[in-house]
Amino acid sequence: MPLQRLVVSPEQMQNGHIRLTPPQLHYLQRVLRLGTGDRFIAMDGDGHAWLASLSAIHTLEPQAEILESIAHSTELPIRVTLVAALPKGNGFDEVVRQATELGVEQILPVLSDRTLLHPSPQKLERWQRIANEAAEQSERLCVPRIATPVPFVEHLQPEQQSATRVKKYLCAARGKAPHLLECLQSDCLSLAGATPSLTSITIAIGPEGGWTDAEVEQAIAASYQPVSLGSRVLRAVTAPLVALSLIAAVYEMGVGIGKR
Amino acid sequence: MPLQRLVVSPEQMQNGHIRLTPPQLHYLQRVLRLGTGDRFIAMDGDGHAWLASLSAIHTLEPQAEILESIAHSTELPIRVTLVAALPKGNGFDEVVRQATELGVEQILPVLSDRTLLHPSPQKLERWQRIANEAAEQSERLCVPRIATPVPFVEHLQPEQQSATRVKKYLCAARGKAPHLLECLQSDCLSLAGATPSLTSITIAIGPEGGWTDAEVEQAIAASYQPVSLGSRVLRAVTAPLVALSLIAAVYEMGVGIGKR
Repeated sequence: MPLQRLVVSPEQMQNGHIRLTPPQLHYLQRVLRLGTGDRFIAMDGDGHAWLASLSAIHTLEPQAEILESIAHSTELPIRVTLVAALPKGNGFDEVVRQATELGVEQILPVLSDRTLLHPSPQKLERWQRIANEAAEQSERLCVPRIATPVPFVEHLQPEQQSATRVKKYLCAARGKAPHLLECLQSDCLSLAGATPSLTSITIAIGPEGGWTDAEVEQAIAASYQPVSLGSRVLRAVTAPLVALSLIAAVYEMGVGIGKR
Repeated sequence: MPLQRLVVSPEQMQNGHIRLTPPQLHYLQRVLRLGTGDRFIAMDGDGHAWLASLSAIHTLEPQAEILESIAHSTELPIRVTLVAALPKGNGFDEVVRQATELGVEQILPVLSDRTLLHPSPQKLERWQRIANEAAEQSERLCVPRIATPVPFVEHLQPEQQSATRVKKYLCAARGKAPHLLECLQSDCLSLAGATPSLTSITIAIGPEGGWTDAEVEQAIAASYQPVSLGSRVLRAVTAPLVALSLIAAVYEMGVGIGKR
């Protein structure tokens, strides 16, 4: 049975202890049924984690003792940003959950020309909460950040583009674009020895019905490379997972190959 | 706007016409809002499809006229069977839906030592209905068959093993097994020129908590090769999609490479 995980914020850490909030104490005590001295893993969501032990649960200031810090191994060797058009209904909940399991670093929900939904601020909080939970469950040390939704064309503006070495793929509807797997493998191999090496991948997935022609053109102008995810029609909730599965597999294997 | 799809059974086809059942007529008329003369795609779920036109919707024997048969292009170049331990709750609905989108030919739900759920016959009907709908939505011509759930060890019995050239992978919890992508690529390449070539892949995904050691041993004895899906913990509903994403990508790309 692996140890249970809890996301804490840096301000909670003090002199080798973690000051627990009432909801955290409730979660540890009532949901996970931990008692005094029981161990769990505290993570700050930014790649750090500690083995901690629950102490003094019946005081006014419940806290846990930090026993040791833990080296991380479940993060991808590359930073991945998912730019995803918001699907209808509550479908984005599952996208956030599964993308977190697959190692994404940041999720940017975007509004496309074919998106009708304008999410409320409550939605953003909900997605961040789901990302926290999913990061705990999948034993990740980094919690993906969910960015505030913006129109896709706004994301494409030059001032939004980062200066780091980032490769950007745009998943297009079935067409003549090369398969994402093909692009990933050639980029992973050709960049393995390059300096500075590729540090980040951005993958953009359209809404049901796909990006409009104008959106595809503007994305290409902003250095996005159109890629295909295969010959079947995928729902907007499935396509991100297919793309992230391929990215994770290629880069985890690529690193494995480099190590030999 | 692509044409809408409807699954029909072979007995409904007669002299260039399709005799429509009342639920089918309701679906075409009320849900899709098609009128006399409107076109749709009829598919038999076994790889055949026809362009059809709705005729005479106000008669006692509603039917559609078959205009022409359609060549298929959305199926994978290899037959894929998903053997999946049943997750808790209704999670299997989404596995069926997404596996269908990803091109699976058959889904065999299995009961593992760590499965508590014994599904009712109604569940099986429900999953088949979801597969039908998902095949229509993802524009597939084959509808995956959902087999009756059996204990995993029963599936491993020699009499259950097919005689065709089938490669079997068992997704193991994080460990020392090679990555599925690595195995797929080496098998796809090495078997591309072989005669008889690989015709079928079976991929087995365990429950939350993974297969037991005994199950892994018995699977290996039944020619399953243990593989890894990467270094993060995946839920039982996510792991099948990761595996199927990799299979579809490698074989669709492999065929592409073979064609050049």
